[in-house]
Amino acid sequence: MTTSPRQRLSPDTRREQLLDLGVRLFATRTLDEINIDLLAEEAGISRGLLYHYFGNKQDFHEAVVRRAIQDLIEVTGPVDEDDLMTRMMISLRNYVDYVTANHTAYVSIVRAASSGNETMHAIYHDALTALIDRIWESSTPEELAAAGIPDTPAIRLLARGWAALTEYVVLAWIEDDRGMSQDELIGNLALALAGIASAVRGGTSD
Amino acid sequence: MTTSPRQRLSPDTRREQLLDLGVRLFATRTLDEINIDLLAEEAGISRGLLYHYFGNKQDFHEAVVRRAIQDLIEVTGPVDEDDLMTRMMISLRNYVDYVTANHTAYVSIVRAASSGNETMHAIYHDALTALIDRIWESSTPEELAAAGIPDTPAIRLLARGWAALTEYVVLAWIEDDRGMSQDELIGNLALALAGIASAVRGGTSD
Repeated sequence: MTTSPRQRLSPDTRREQLLDLGVRLFATRTLDEINIDLLAEEAGISRGLLYHYFGNKQDFHEAVVRRAIQDLIEVTGPVDEDDLMTRMMISLRNYVDYVTANHTAYVSIVRAASSGNETMHAIYHDALTALIDRIWESSTPEELAAAGIPDTPAIRLLARGWAALTEYVVLAWIEDDRGMSQDELIGNLALALAGIASAVRGGTSD
Repeated sequence: MTTSPRQRLSPDTRREQLLDLGVRLFATRTLDEINIDLLAEEAGISRGLLYHYFGNKQDFHEAVVRRAIQDLIEVTGPVDEDDLMTRMMISLRNYVDYVTANHTAYVSIVRAASSGNETMHAIYHDALTALIDRIWESSTPEELAAAGIPDTPAIRLLARGWAALTEYVVLAWIEDDRGMSQDELIGNLALALAGIASAVRGGTSD
């Protein structure tokens, strides 16, 4: 171990700062529109140094998408509320706010995940799974039973399908709100999940 | 008007036949894997003639996808059954059968629609809209009221979201059926739509 004569940011911290900037640039741009050159210009440092931190363009894009998804998972994280439905409504509101504020980037991630790039698909799919499986992981069995969302393979699969529904509906609502307020949108999405769980629970024997 | 000395297929009929062959080749291949060369080989005719019928590669891909989607809309079309829920279950079964039989092609269409190709996106989006809006168009207001699916902008939007849910769930089920039979899958999907409609209907004032 050596001690540096003056305080310097560790390479990891510096990389994190640059990644933060990359994610901020990404919010209003597509993946194709952000690259090492743009980041170098905005950060005022050399392209060479950025390639040192991020490798090639593909690695840089993956790092930015991982960070953006990590932000999404954090802002929609479980809050300290007793009621499962209240927690879900707050998470949904934070999701809608995030997708609205980062619309271009979000659409770009969805496209990258669907385009046949296996790494992007895996990052996106893991995030979707994590976001939804959190419903069961952050709740007690009693709460889940009371909310009518027991843990069965069928309901877990349908809940992931509900995440696809939610993504579709929120993106369509941002384009044309059809006279629905954000409160109505969020209420409808939460009710849809409850309706799905209730219908499936009543309709199968497992 | 001249009369041909022997029966010849009209150019339109010939093009349709070639397109049928293109769609059959597509069922087990991705869009990237089918092209004029493959079609020429399978049909036993010259590449030049095929370019005459289909223009460039992009036009050929669009023609094949349009035809595949048209087939999907036809096989899932409304059947002659009095009960709306029965009609929906039959459509769903035909949808699951179609996606199972044409899995590679279907995934490839979804990818092309999501990848930023505007024409493919429009073809896919129009098909999704047509498939879902058919619920209202093929039913009487009395039937819709009895089934709990009134015609409101919110329910139409959520129903399109349910189509996204259905696509996600069916593709995931084909990869891993999680112990669910096809009957259970179809029952769960139909119940999910009823549950969504019921929840949204009860939760909003429109």
